Amino acid sequence: MSKIIGNNLPDMPWQEKPAGEHMPVWRYDQNPIIGRYEQKRSNSIFNSAVVPFEDGYVGVFRCDSRSISMDIFVGRSKDGIHWEIEDEPIKFEGADEEILTREYRYDPRVCKIDDKYYVTWCNGYHGPTIGVAYTYDFKKFVQLENAFLPFNRNGVLFPRKINGYYMMMSRPSDNGHTPFGDIFVSQSKDMEFWGRHRHMMSPVRGDESAWQCTKIGAGPVPIETDEGWLLIYHGVITTCNGYVYRMGCALLDIDEPWKVKYRTKDYIMAPITQYECMGDVPNVVFPCATLSDAATGRITIYYGCADTVTGMAFTTVDELLNYVKENSL
Amino acid sequence: MSKIIGNNLPDMPWQEKPAGEHMPVWRYDQNPIIGRYEQKRSNSIFNSAVVPFEDGYVGVFRCDSRSISMDIFVGRSKDGIHWEIEDEPIKFEGADEEILTREYRYDPRVCKIDDKYYVTWCNGYHGPTIGVAYTYDFKKFVQLENAFLPFNRNGVLFPRKINGYYMMMSRPSDNGHTPFGDIFVSQSKDMEFWGRHRHMMSPVRGDESAWQCTKIGAGPVPIETDEGWLLIYHGVITTCNGYVYRMGCALLDIDEPWKVKYRTKDYIMAPITQYECMGDVPNVVFPCATLSDAATGRITIYYGCADTVTGMAFTTVDELLNYVKENSL
Amino acid sequence: MSKIIGNNLPDMPWQEKPAGEHMPVWRYDQNPIIGRYEQKRSNSIFNSAVVPFEDGYVGVFRCDSRSISMDIFVGRSKDGIHWEIEDEPIKFEGADEEILTREYRYDPRVCKIDDKYYVTWCNGYHGPTIGVAYTYDFKKFVQLENAFLPFNRNGVLFPRKINGYYMMMSRPSDNGHTPFGDIFVSQSKDMEFWGRHRHMMSPVRGDESAWQCTKIGAGPVPIETDEGWLLIYHGVITTCNGYVYRMGCALLDIDEPWKVKYRTKDYIMAPITQYECMGDVPNVVFPCATLSDAATGRITIYYGCADTVTGMAFTTVDELLNYVKENSL
Amino acid sequence: MSKIIGNNLPDMPWQEKPAGEHMPVWRYDQNPIIGRYEQKRSNSIFNSAVVPFEDGYVGVFRCDSRSISMDIFVGRSKDGIHWEIEDEPIKFEGADEEILTREYRYDPRVCKIDDKYYVTWCNGYHGPTIGVAYTYDFKKFVQLENAFLPFNRNGVLFPRKINGYYMMMSRPSDNGHTPFGDIFVSQSKDMEFWGRHRHMMSPVRGDESAWQCTKIGAGPVPIETDEGWLLIYHGVITTCNGYVYRMGCALLDIDEPWKVKYRTKDYIMAPITQYECMGDVPNVVFPCATLSDAATGRITIYYGCADTVTGMAFTTVDELLNYVKENSL
Amino acid sequence: MSKIIGNNLPDMPWQEKPAGEHMPVWRYDQNPIIGRYEQKRSNSIFNSAVVPFEDGYVGVFRCDSRSISMDIFVGRSKDGIHWEIEDEPIKFEGADEEILTREYRYDPRVCKIDDKYYVTWCNGYHGPTIGVAYTYDFKKFVQLENAFLPFNRNGVLFPRKINGYYMMMSRPSDNGHTPFGDIFVSQSKDMEFWGRHRHMMSPVRGDESAWQCTKIGAGPVPIETDEGWLLIYHGVITTCNGYVYRMGCALLDIDEPWKVKYRTKDYIMAPITQYECMGDVPNVVFPCATLSDAATGRITIYYGCADTVTGMAFTTVDELLNYVKENSL
Amino acid sequence: MSKIIGNNLPDMPWQEKPAGEHMPVWRYDQNPIIGRYEQKRSNSIFNSAVVPFEDGYVGVFRCDSRSISMDIFVGRSKDGIHWEIEDEPIKFEGADEEILTREYRYDPRVCKIDDKYYVTWCNGYHGPTIGVAYTYDFKKFVQLENAFLPFNRNGVLFPRKINGYYMMMSRPSDNGHTPFGDIFVSQSKDMEFWGRHRHMMSPVRGDESAWQCTKIGAGPVPIETDEGWLLIYHGVITTCNGYVYRMGCALLDIDEPWKVKYRTKDYIMAPITQYECMGDVPNVVFPCATLSDAATGRITIYYGCADTVTGMAFTTVDELLNYVKENSL
Repeated sequence: MSKIIGNNLPDMPWQEKPAGEHMPVWRYDQNPIIGRYEQKRSNSIFNSAVVPFEDGYVGVFRCDSRSISMDIFVGRSKDGIHWEIEDEPIKFEGADEEILTREYRYDPRVCKIDDKYYVTWCNGYHGPTIGVAYTYDFKKFVQLENAFLPFNRNGVLFPRKINGYYMMMSRPSDNGHTPFGDIFVSQSKDMEFWGRHRHMMSPVRGDESAWQCTKIGAGPVPIETDEGWLLIYHGVITTCNGYVYRMGCALLDIDEPWKVKYRTKDYIMAPITQYECMGDVPNVVFPCATLSDAATGRITIYYGCADTVTGMAFTTVDELLNYVKENSL
Repeated sequence: MSKIIGNNLPDMPWQEKPAGEHMPVWRYDQNPIIGRYEQKRSNSIFNSAVVPFEDGYVGVFRCDSRSISMDIFVGRSKDGIHWEIEDEPIKFEGADEEILTREYRYDPRVCKIDDKYYVTWCNGYHGPTIGVAYTYDFKKFVQLENAFLPFNRNGVLFPRKINGYYMMMSRPSDNGHTPFGDIFVSQSKDMEFWGRHRHMMSPVRGDESAWQCTKIGAGPVPIETDEGWLLIYHGVITTCNGYVYRMGCALLDIDEPWKVKYRTKDYIMAPITQYECMGDVPNVVFPCATLSDAATGRITIYYGCADTVTGMAFTTVDELLNYVKENSL
Repeated sequence: MSKIIGNNLPDMPWQEKPAGEHMPVWRYDQNPIIGRYEQKRSNSIFNSAVVPFEDGYVGVFRCDSRSISMDIFVGRSKDGIHWEIEDEPIKFEGADEEILTREYRYDPRVCKIDDKYYVTWCNGYHGPTIGVAYTYDFKKFVQLENAFLPFNRNGVLFPRKINGYYMMMSRPSDNGHTPFGDIFVSQSKDMEFWGRHRHMMSPVRGDESAWQCTKIGAGPVPIETDEGWLLIYHGVITTCNGYVYRMGCALLDIDEPWKVKYRTKDYIMAPITQYECMGDVPNVVFPCATLSDAATGRITIYYGCADTVTGMAFTTVDELLNYVKENSL
Repeated sequence: MSKIIGNNLPDMPWQEKPAGEHMPVWRYDQNPIIGRYEQKRSNSIFNSAVVPFEDGYVGVFRCDSRSISMDIFVGRSKDGIHWEIEDEPIKFEGADEEILTREYRYDPRVCKIDDKYYVTWCNGYHGPTIGVAYTYDFKKFVQLENAFLPFNRNGVLFPRKINGYYMMMSRPSDNGHTPFGDIFVSQSKDMEFWGRHRHMMSPVRGDESAWQCTKIGAGPVPIETDEGWLLIYHGVITTCNGYVYRMGCALLDIDEPWKVKYRTKDYIMAPITQYECMGDVPNVVFPCATLSDAATGRITIYYGCADTVTGMAFTTVDELLNYVKENSL
Repeated sequence: MSKIIGNNLPDMPWQEKPAGEHMPVWRYDQNPIIGRYEQKRSNSIFNSAVVPFEDGYVGVFRCDSRSISMDIFVGRSKDGIHWEIEDEPIKFEGADEEILTREYRYDPRVCKIDDKYYVTWCNGYHGPTIGVAYTYDFKKFVQLENAFLPFNRNGVLFPRKINGYYMMMSRPSDNGHTPFGDIFVSQSKDMEFWGRHRHMMSPVRGDESAWQCTKIGAGPVPIETDEGWLLIYHGVITTCNGYVYRMGCALLDIDEPWKVKYRTKDYIMAPITQYECMGDVPNVVFPCATLSDAATGRITIYYGCADTVTGMAFTTVDELLNYVKENSL
Repeated sequence: MSKIIGNNLPDMPWQEKPAGEHMPVWRYDQNPIIGRYEQKRSNSIFNSAVVPFEDGYVGVFRCDSRSISMDIFVGRSKDGIHWEIEDEPIKFEGADEEILTREYRYDPRVCKIDDKYYVTWCNGYHGPTIGVAYTYDFKKFVQLENAFLPFNRNGVLFPRKINGYYMMMSRPSDNGHTPFGDIFVSQSKDMEFWGRHRHMMSPVRGDESAWQCTKIGAGPVPIETDEGWLLIYHGVITTCNGYVYRMGCALLDIDEPWKVKYRTKDYIMAPITQYECMGDVPNVVFPCATLSDAATGRITIYYGCADTVTGMAFTTVDELLNYVKENSL
């Protein structure tokens, strides 16, 4: 029995594993939880980040508008399932107009460190890079410097300092539909200057684990366990008809998280339902956030479906750790 | 209140806007109106052109055969919804065997000017160009010279001479799946020699209106209004899994139609139903014809779905003009 | 009335042609017969080969694992519809460890010649080539030398020697998603050394038969008829959103099978159902095996659907021969 | 003995064929005649057009500046060999500011028809197309409408009306380094509206004449002879290290010049000297103009070398006609 | 008259501007100064960095071996022209084996700040990034952390802290022959953690300054002048036969060096000699280092030629500043 | 001291190693020995095969015609340096018109086995494959079956049976400028049916030996030595400006020649002269034949230069074996 190091969240959304289910992750039976047109001007609402907040939940949502402009919005929910998303995108404050100038924003993650909620996202600054901001109340957001030079995507913070450093995963990219991509960990004393970049893991070439042969990227903020950091990530294969995005997980060393102790050879979830296989980008499941309950080990995953709608799925820390150990590369 | 300049067509297909619909265009609830196998040898029936004729409707239909040979066929309907399509493609007459020789034909539009019905289509002549023909009765079709040199697609006439010139929009292309494309207007005194080519509009790079960032092309014959020409067009974005075709509209200057007064930043319709997202080319809505009723301002759009079947959608001149003005680039 | 030269198989799976069906091949109404998760660790079960064996049926199945590792497995069925697939992939014996070393294996065919069941498949050996093995009992499999140098796919044997030679069709390829491909016939006296390579047929460029304009490949083992070898094959077109795989057939000279007597201009089957159009690779029907009954001329086709699940379809020798003669290129 | 239909030009640059020369075209022994830095701000001076004028010669020269901006300039020479090129590019006058607005200009040809000297060039107007202007004196240039829609290059006029129509060759292209390209002929009554487009000739696929397998384009203004129009053109092959541009010639029907009577299978000139093989674009000979002397049948060719400097070469009408007849495709 | 802020270097290599030279930079008349085979195992010696040291000069040289392995070597010279290059590449010391592990090293720059000589280079660490080391004596080199995540090239330091920060230019890239690339400036307090990334300048699209339309990259360490930082950089255009690398310069704000005051529209030097146009990569001039003499304003540029040999060229601060002001974008 | 197993050839072309030469292979000082225009209709004469014959030498030469048609021709020489090449290409006799039909022929090798001279070449048969023929007298050539299916190039025989089998190296390819390629060995009892294909060696990815990172291919017929087969081969790297072809060598096991005992990490020869770096395909040295003298160990290499002319270079068995052992991968 593994343990999540964290808070209890007894009322978070949850469904038991269905009888006969042989996969370690199972879907919410009312998926998708957020439809494409549920925000005032949205074309799609998908890769989105959720955290517990006050007596309910708050999230930062990627809503592509009907002009297919990508931006991020605050949403609120009592139960984590039914969401009210604001009509206007987040407005950031900050020191330098150069950094505040919006090109585009997408694929947010939210990470609570001490009393701040940090938002990281793919931020356009002469190419995609990692934008960073913090908020206490999801009303005022202070934008810091971009963490890295372009081209980068999938910047995900660890939820506490490790050996005195903030740590962020990211996936260096190019300026298009990037047919490659490894995960690195970078370190910072102050959330402004980053260095000590360490390579964490690469795609797997060849037949051994081909679902993650084109590129990989960190998903939700890692979950601390007594065995290490539990990371859920996405992997991509290139078929003759395009990319397929699936989910895997890894267990990282607790002190040097770029050291991978276990990593799934088999995926933990793949696009198979109509809402995952049909949409603006077919065949995508893309996890961006989890809720977890330390008492029971339950984990609820929020994930984007076909770059169009938002789904929810469930697992437990034991399911994932057993699976990754039995299926490790 | 804007006005359509044209005929009344009180019995054309129509459904009121559903309650709760927030988009300016809504689908016929019995879509698709023409299935893929409804013609003798068809694989698919999609980008097709419809006009009122005698006491009903007539159309020129793109039917790809089961050998995936592209040709155009006459179809007839009493109500604009149920169609009988001929088994044999249109046979053209004309002056020069060189021009009459068929390579392939697709994506027809029909435009009534005075007493002639002009058909324009993408015509293979050592590359795709714009074929032109006319008919009085949809039985005898006289083919004229190709309007332009290859490579060109989406040739769409204006329904009357403007300042003494026939005018045709077109979208210069290459010889493949063209990842670029602007709309131009060309002019002719005689439907044979064309010149005075003017650039009308380009794709929109970047985040501002990304659904139309790869290429655009004119759709149905423009509708004359008291505020200018109302043009419905398609726009394309390139995702990692291919193209998505959506619809927008623009209001053009009545005398110099290459001057764009308003143009939609947000799309007016996108592929979201199963018959638009699943088929030979997923994620395509492609408008080729409208019917309109001057008395009520109603507009019925015929559009191809997933390059496989034919759908119908509804709007009004006020819906579109209000939308384009509020959402203009 | 044409005749199949072969055994009777009166109990093989069969459904009569539905009223109103205008295509020469029709689907089993309970398709798909094998789902993606029906084997212990499978992600998908699709391009698979079936033969009558003892009092039922046996098959060699392509099961991609949840790590998307491609391998081939034995399955058994009483009725040809309900299948039990083994948990472990086929283990091959043979003379040379170099050849036995597995890189990847996929798209098997099974061909009975005399008393041996030969399995051919796409075999990784520094690139894809054609692996060859035989079995008497589907328990012990002896692997022979690879038939050809890389890069090759779709190696399909004829079910008897012709003029003293074993004959195998194949489709020379490259090391990726090969955007070209012709079918050749190669000859061997001993199943080990191959030569006398003859070109059989090419894709069809242009509008004449565009569904097979990108590449083609042999499907099931050819069926001997009194008019020649009946070959079912796949053809591929490249749309702006990827490949579409359809089925055609050809009638080959009985003694020089690289000579094509008739070949379908129109396809005989195309992906149109949800299980063929949605999946890991949308828009694929890929035939790999048939059962046939000489007494009635019935033919049952096993085919992969969307590279995800396995379907079954029906036709007769008369349906196909009439169709190919009326529709020949 | 063939005859040039045209003027005598006894003093034009000329050198006799060297002993031992086995090619039908031979180089000026002082090549290149114009170096890359011979104009005030030029980086290169190459694809350029020359005509007899008054008591000497005048030309329109492509000079790429040291910012690699492409524009066209007037040059003057007493002997056709030593040139003075103006410091400022040609300034055009004309009716419509939209057409006069310069994007870029390159690869000019000059064609005298009656008393006007027409200049055609590759003109940027939302893509490359064919600019047209005329001058009487090479001081005032009146720009007409662009002949065609983009994308087009290598627009070359015939030096008189044929059957009452101006005729222009061109090579439809795409918006990049175009890996394809056929020559067409278009017709006009007024130099403004163009139509009756006819296909003249295509690249030659395969081994038969591979130097012209990628694309071809008209070179100098055709030379009228008693056997038809003599056209010198360029052809391009794609090697693993880029394009190689060579020269060929064709004899066209005098009344329907899109009908090719003879066309060289073997090239007439290829890049082999250092100034043709080394430069901004290695391995290019690109002919844009000729001078010819009816009395002797002599022809002097001006051609661009490696997109960097200008060369001169010599031949005769008999050399070319004999060669094209003996080597015809 | 502008002034270089820096040391006098009266004996550095120098030749006066030749009579008739109209370019602002002129070549050493004995170029190349270092041939391809002048080091024990070298295939080529080109993009290399030189500084004054003790009573002569020292440099860090890119020598590609005859296995085309890229590494960097120390060289020494009395006169800056004749060089002795060590047989063995630089061996770095440092804190972390992970960082010290060599994948490949190329394109070094050397920058003296205070009493340390910093070397920056393109360093393979799961993709190209910027390696950083320092030395006092060119014998012992201490390697620091890589400055950035991959993919990056052309990391060039400023020769002093600015407003308390070390500053480094770099050019984010992809993992191949990168067909794009802007220059950014990044800041650091400690040479280990970097941030406050600012965009400096982009390639210039279109006809305005096409020699730098594909990508640009910083060249030598900037030269401080009384008008700002003088930066020499390279720019690349893509022709149909590959890339051409040329040189330009810019004047940067002295305190916020990402602000560009002037930037050359015309290049200052282009490959035109045989040793620049013929070699392993034809048509490349690539500047990596300068020597300068404050007293006279003289500047000597070391540059790679055709990725094969090393050349030297001369200019003055006045030549460049006058040129950039007169030719500014 | 190693020994060549073979005949003495005391009068073969030879020059001693120049003083100061540090490479193991040195050029003939009168290179090139055959110019591009030395055959009646040739554009280029390059990748060509030479053997001793009667009292002099005979060769099979690749001559691309001035139409750039690729074919192979017999040439004769008294001294191995001065050659007379026939005007007409080789006409083959044989059993099957299908095989005899010429598409294109290039890159011949000649291998004497017993009393026959076998010619192998790249032969067009619905794609490039390996043509095989034999002659006794270089007058009558009997063409056998193609050895393999397309796509293949660089088929090179071993000069005797090994363990009872003819053995041929080849390099499976695709249908274009193939950016990959390994060497395999195939076996045959009868020169007609081939099998037992074994992988010999691959390109070397990464920095270790990048000159051979894109593809490799066998060069001349291997030379038997007392230490194994000495193979000279070519290797290719992809620069931003195209391919560079260099030469290396390997020592193969005498009985199982797919087993590589040593292989050069450093190249043995690279294009550096003008006739190797300038021509139809710059930067190519491509070896196709050697002469060797067992008594002295001398080896003379014939190689193509820039796909344009033919050069000769010298080495000895000791030079190569010492080099490959000291430089082995």
